[in-house]
Amino acid sequence: MKIDVFTHFAPAGFAEYLERFALGRAAVPRWRRIPTLVDLDARRRLLDPLDDYVQVLSLPNPAIEAFGPPSDAREIARVANDSLAELCARHRDRFPAFVANLPMNDPAAAVEEAERAVRDLGAAGCLVYTNVLGAPLSDPVYAPIFAKAAELDCPLWLHPIRGPETPDYKTEDASRHEIWFMFGWPYETAAAMARLVFSGLFDRLPNVKIITHHLGGLVPYLE
Amino acid sequence: MKIDVFTHFAPAGFAEYLERFALGRAAVPRWRRIPTLVDLDARRRLLDPLDDYVQVLSLPNPAIEAFGPPSDAREIARVANDSLAELCARHRDRFPAFVANLPMNDPAAAVEEAERAVRDLGAAGCLVYTNVLGAPLSDPVYAPIFAKAAELDCPLWLHPIRGPETPDYKTEDASRHEIWFMFGWPYETAAAMARLVFSGLFDRLPNVKIITHHLGGLVPYLE
Repeated sequence: MKIDVFTHFAPAGFAEYLERFALGRAAVPRWRRIPTLVDLDARRRLLDPLDDYVQVLSLPNPAIEAFGPPSDAREIARVANDSLAELCARHRDRFPAFVANLPMNDPAAAVEEAERAVRDLGAAGCLVYTNVLGAPLSDPVYAPIFAKAAELDCPLWLHPIRGPETPDYKTEDASRHEIWFMFGWPYETAAAMARLVFSGLFDRLPNVKIITHHLGGLVPYLE
Repeated sequence: MKIDVFTHFAPAGFAEYLERFALGRAAVPRWRRIPTLVDLDARRRLLDPLDDYVQVLSLPNPAIEAFGPPSDAREIARVANDSLAELCARHRDRFPAFVANLPMNDPAAAVEEAERAVRDLGAAGCLVYTNVLGAPLSDPVYAPIFAKAAELDCPLWLHPIRGPETPDYKTEDASRHEIWFMFGWPYETAAAMARLVFSGLFDRLPNVKIITHHLGGLVPYLE
């Protein structure tokens, strides 16, 4: 059996929740332009020809903290995780597990939600992005989240987050031609992992496990 | 015979000129910390054991435009190129040619210096960096330089330039742990080449030749 741990999907319940409260206005319309990203029937039809193949689901970009301030992020993460758990429970044949979302702009809530999602909802691990609203994951404020993941013995998925608003030249305001994506995402992933290494994370928590999206960013290729 | 086209060296005459006029104060002391980068005897001793091996010399970072304003850059480039030409003339056995430097903050002067360096001094080509004091090479103001290189049928060497002052996170002022160098230089190179491609450069000037330092940056590895 092939277990694909890098597939994104947004459950209808979560997309509708975001729309109902007008959260992250750009994200849901973008998701809906790719039917297999939000339409469960479309996704299942896509998979129909594939035998012995299952998907561990994670939400598409953006991160929970982009949808609302710290006061709301905990609730948004709970809705996201509940909807993913419910979807997986109904479709274990194709989607045996999901990756939980954390309200990273409220680190204490993120720790609690990691525990709830893994212990109570059966999440396979938790998703973090390469920066938290611009801040590095190596900031000590996020250390308890890594410690909780190590305690739960669940992996953290690391996904790049970077948009065209990160310019490639000092004289410009934005990155062009999707350079921010094509080269920027691997760069972000490598930079984030380097920062975690130099922060001493893997010395402090030798059993912490990080699954880097997109084959690890730059490092495996340059190596 | 092996012809190494990626070796940096700063002729003593140019280093002393920069020091005499207090130009680029940080650069020369940095160069001097690596004796084989500025001391011809040290460089020749390094090469003594190697048979059938020659080096095409280019200056180490930074770019000419970092040493002075447009009003001075033409003169600085001329001194750099004259000193490289003189060194190569005396040591053809090891250094058969050099890569010329251009005052990119004075594009009209850069065109003239490219012509002088290639036609009169015998430069093998000209060096450009991945950005000009923060601006992309695809800016139309630099188009005449590419046109001149195509007309002279000489390659342009493309070298990354980026320092720790390019932060990796919006919450920080600087890149840490040499991420700007280890991952940033390949990123810079890939971004600069992408911008040149999307600018239509290779359609307008099909015979323009660009030699990318460090094996091309990211693209060959990701490919």
